[in-house]
Amino acid sequence: MIGTTSSWDLYERGCPSRDLLDRIGDKWSILVLGELGEHGRSRFTELRNRLSGVSEKMLTQTLRALESDGLVLRTVHARVPVRVDYELTALGQTLRAPLRALTEWSLQHTDEVLAARAAYAARVEQGA
Amino acid sequence: MIGTTSSWDLYERGCPSRDLLDRIGDKWSILVLGELGEHGRSRFTELRNRLSGVSEKMLTQTLRALESDGLVLRTVHARVPVRVDYELTALGQTLRAPLRALTEWSLQHTDEVLAARAAYAARVEQGA
Repeated sequence: MIGTTSSWDLYERGCPSRDLLDRIGDKWSILVLGELGEHGRSRFTELRNRLSGVSEKMLTQTLRALESDGLVLRTVHARVPVRVDYELTALGQTLRAPLRALTEWSLQHTDEVLAARAAYAARVEQGA
Repeated sequence: MIGTTSSWDLYERGCPSRDLLDRIGDKWSILVLGELGEHGRSRFTELRNRLSGVSEKMLTQTLRALESDGLVLRTVHARVPVRVDYELTALGQTLRAPLRALTEWSLQHTDEVLAARAAYAARVEQGA
């Protein structure tokens, strides 16, 4: 069992911490949080440009979910044209270190994983 | 930009490390890797019992993906009835610490996130 320091248990069916894990483990969530951690307060178009390949819809959904979870603060400046900023909340800041560990692992081991996949595909093809 | 220690760049469209991030950030992958890290070599039914709520199909898919990625080793013992074991590879072991940081965060902050979601839903309802 993981996490005896909390009243929640990831190995319990329906535990909300399990869904939270899915949310924060999502690729786009990780990249958005990483960008806001690195660059600080950003506008939507800045994020979209930095996250090569993200669709407008996906970025909107991701930001809304992160805002709802209390990880990102959205500020609307009442002026013309309206300006909307996104930044990490204090809670979002606490996620930076764990997520950085994961992204670092991912970058450092991509080559090994790609090699493993190629070997696995070859084994499957040989019917092993 | 994250990860200047690798030739990969998570902020590049189509970078395989980005998909790898999605794979290892998947809730079931995290729970399976956590269980195998904690308990060592396990059989399918042991894993299914420990991961309350996982379907047989989802567990099969997750294990196959982790095996293909070189994170989990599957060993078939030729005897009757056939026995199949799963355990972490050396590469899988290197993921334990980063994933533990993430699961710990998730458990420790679930209450805050649930409170944030309730506050957000109330704001949306008020049309704010």
